[in-house]
Amino acid sequence: MEVTAEVIAQHFNGEIVGNPDVKVSSVAKIEYGKPGNICFLANPKYAQYLKTCKASVIIINRSLAPAEPIEPTLILVDNAYEAVASLLDLLNNLKSAKKSGKSFFARCAWSSKIAKGAYIGAYSVVGKKSVVGKDTQVYPQVYIGNNVTIGENCILYPGVKIYDGCKIGNNCIFHANVVIGSDGFGFAPRPDGSYKKIPQTGIVTIEDDVEIGANTVVDRATMGTTLIQKGVKLDNLIQIAHNVEIGPHTVMASQVGIAGSTKVGANCQFGGQVGVAGHLTIPDKTTIGAQAGILGSVKKSGEVLLGSPAFDYKQYLKCYAMFRKLADTNKK
Amino acid sequence: MEVTAEVIAQHFNGEIVGNPDVKVSSVAKIEYGKPGNICFLANPKYAQYLKTCKASVIIINRSLAPAEPIEPTLILVDNAYEAVASLLDLLNNLKSAKKSGKSFFARCAWSSKIAKGAYIGAYSVVGKKSVVGKDTQVYPQVYIGNNVTIGENCILYPGVKIYDGCKIGNNCIFHANVVIGSDGFGFAPRPDGSYKKIPQTGIVTIEDDVEIGANTVVDRATMGTTLIQKGVKLDNLIQIAHNVEIGPHTVMASQVGIAGSTKVGANCQFGGQVGVAGHLTIPDKTTIGAQAGILGSVKKSGEVLLGSPAFDYKQYLKCYAMFRKLADTNKK
Amino acid sequence: MEVTAEVIAQHFNGEIVGNPDVKVSSVAKIEYGKPGNICFLANPKYAQYLKTCKASVIIINRSLAPAEPIEPTLILVDNAYEAVASLLDLLNNLKSAKKSGKSFFARCAWSSKIAKGAYIGAYSVVGKKSVVGKDTQVYPQVYIGNNVTIGENCILYPGVKIYDGCKIGNNCIFHANVVIGSDGFGFAPRPDGSYKKIPQTGIVTIEDDVEIGANTVVDRATMGTTLIQKGVKLDNLIQIAHNVEIGPHTVMASQVGIAGSTKVGANCQFGGQVGVAGHLTIPDKTTIGAQAGILGSVKKSGEVLLGSPAFDYKQYLKCYAMFRKLADTNKK
Repeated sequence: MEVTAEVIAQHFNGEIVGNPDVKVSSVAKIEYGKPGNICFLANPKYAQYLKTCKASVIIINRSLAPAEPIEPTLILVDNAYEAVASLLDLLNNLKSAKKSGKSFFARCAWSSKIAKGAYIGAYSVVGKKSVVGKDTQVYPQVYIGNNVTIGENCILYPGVKIYDGCKIGNNCIFHANVVIGSDGFGFAPRPDGSYKKIPQTGIVTIEDDVEIGANTVVDRATMGTTLIQKGVKLDNLIQIAHNVEIGPHTVMASQVGIAGSTKVGANCQFGGQVGVAGHLTIPDKTTIGAQAGILGSVKKSGEVLLGSPAFDYKQYLKCYAMFRKLADTNKK
Repeated sequence: MEVTAEVIAQHFNGEIVGNPDVKVSSVAKIEYGKPGNICFLANPKYAQYLKTCKASVIIINRSLAPAEPIEPTLILVDNAYEAVASLLDLLNNLKSAKKSGKSFFARCAWSSKIAKGAYIGAYSVVGKKSVVGKDTQVYPQVYIGNNVTIGENCILYPGVKIYDGCKIGNNCIFHANVVIGSDGFGFAPRPDGSYKKIPQTGIVTIEDDVEIGANTVVDRATMGTTLIQKGVKLDNLIQIAHNVEIGPHTVMASQVGIAGSTKVGANCQFGGQVGVAGHLTIPDKTTIGAQAGILGSVKKSGEVLLGSPAFDYKQYLKCYAMFRKLADTNKK
Repeated sequence: MEVTAEVIAQHFNGEIVGNPDVKVSSVAKIEYGKPGNICFLANPKYAQYLKTCKASVIIINRSLAPAEPIEPTLILVDNAYEAVASLLDLLNNLKSAKKSGKSFFARCAWSSKIAKGAYIGAYSVVGKKSVVGKDTQVYPQVYIGNNVTIGENCILYPGVKIYDGCKIGNNCIFHANVVIGSDGFGFAPRPDGSYKKIPQTGIVTIEDDVEIGANTVVDRATMGTTLIQKGVKLDNLIQIAHNVEIGPHTVMASQVGIAGSTKVGANCQFGGQVGVAGHLTIPDKTTIGAQAGILGSVKKSGEVLLGSPAFDYKQYLKCYAMFRKLADTNKK
């Protein structure tokens, strides 16, 4: 899809300098701009790239406009950040035009309810008594078990698998190959050293506005429910074990692992590859640095932790600075 | 599905105190009990919740029964733990009523053998000369390559992918999107810095009673077989590289990674996010703490290890306690 | 498939000692050789197994041939390593006989272009205006979105998911359940503590000769492209975030995570479970040890790093040796 500079400028009342009829088809960073691209410049640090940028159009803060004419068409605005955010939204809406209806090649149980405006893609399966809400987009090759409830306006990308009984809110996005509701890892040791499986009869509940990254897994509870509250954002390849609870608007970077029955508060931020042991409590607004390991409950809200086992990150960095001198200490 | 307190009490000869006709449809923890739930109380620590619990039924140790009547119907038993385990088993059996037969929407090669009582779900594929044993449940969207053997009474959840030639025992459970038999990571460096793929011509062998968590990967051997022995339990998102061998009844928590050709003994326990280097030997009954890194073979059986590189965990915790004081040492 | 010792010997002009008509059907290590296997012996260390090896055929360096006759048929060659590599290639070619044509049970959009010799397996989906190149093998249950370009001679194993607009070169191999082009993890905090999704409008570009392991994820760029250059090899369960660039012939072991916008150079080697923070630069030929954490850009090419945060690995191991003595220091 190609659009002219003029159409884009009208979208946020920008002023055109140069050819208004030049067409663009994709967005790029200013340092990589090529013909057909639209770039933006809001930070003076990047002004150096104006001379070499080969893009067709640049959205630019009025204050950063170059004195001399340059090759790309400019669109002058007060705030290029805002303009580009609005442009990305526009492009995204164009890109993901919603589909509706069941593919002839999907299998939906007679007792399932697919709401008006919902879309079920080819080779997807919806089990007995499951409900898919209004405008929800179920891509191809998705599996929705029995007695599953999915709210309105969700997106389930290809290969998502949702086990029986799980409950999903509105406006959730699950990326490809996410697994929701697999059995928790529960085994009782037998005297002979072997293990007996403990049946995992609970479910997973995911509230509104949750986004979950590709190949992330959320296990069902042994009893009751594993709970992901409103607005949580989970990156790719994360493990959420059985009976875990995660508070509203907490975000976790990729490859984090949370062990069974741990309760994480609201508005926390976890870096990549963090590990948290089971049966712990992590209060609201806790920040945990990448690769840290949490072995005990955190007492105060608002702490920033690092290390394995983790403690205050400033203290950790001081200790680590000393650790790096240990080899020399030895010589002395 | 709803059941009355009376039906449940009969299941393990419990004594009813209260209304025997009240109906329950799901199990909950006593601190979260709501109408329609059945809870249990076996630990005096949780007796405080008896007063506030809104569940319809509570299974309770006779010794913990309250003196005064309470709202929920009580089922008195000698051992509420045992009763609830038996109840969970019952519910689980009801839940997962076995299916049988091939879905009209599955593709099974003419030369494949699907045993009596086995089930092959919609959009699943079974390749040439592959065998699926008696009562094995293959959910939708599973891929079974050519010359694969799967034993009796297994469960393959949606999205499981098994490459050509792999051999699976009886009573195995593979959760959604598990991959068995993908190529090992083997590349020979060329003089120009590029790599030549080393063909991975082996297979994966998985013995009886193995459970593998969602999105876990077990690579095929370069030659011979990668081997997961009887009773092993692997959690979600684990990496088992080519030619690894894992001994009977070893359990590994999520996100563990075992590099190529390492041999792990029987009855080991690995915490989450543990990493083990390639070509090592880990003896029976080794315990490895979460996030530990194993860089050398472990000599004695029964060790407990922590740290990266890992050593004796008690010693590690002592060293780490000193590490945490290093910042202060500096000041002095 | 069974082959005689004679046929194999002819393949690399080996000299037969023993029965030329004995048949073998699979390759094994010499310590595990059973009837029907072919083994090889190139390293004198393993000569001890000659006596006990039950294989039907052994390919052996002429210099290591035993003085006395043994049970297995021997094939004498100058270099048994080379012979076995050539044999594995042969077996691999036999194994993976290419298919071509679209399965009747696949859905390819009218506007997609499937080149001659390409194969699209059952229950796979190819979206609008997407292109699949000559001889490329798309296994069952693969999802290819709209406007995707895939080059010639690629293999996409079952369950691979490729989002809209991504571009894949020639000779690439993606293992089962790989996800390419899922949204980057980008959210703007709102004053109330909740997050607004930043649309991810870029793509993923993967150049020629790239192999990607099972369940690995490569996110699409916010703008522009995430870039995996020629000859890169990624193991299983790896996370590559949005706008990351990885230089030619870099290899990464399983469970590595690279955060957003980081640029990794050519010919680097990353061990398992390495984590790299966002917006960093890692120069060519950097080696990073398993479980290391990279928190700052690396300045010189050719460094070898370990620890979290990582520094020179020799220095790290010296410091760690001192760390292990800290408990004793305390006593003194």
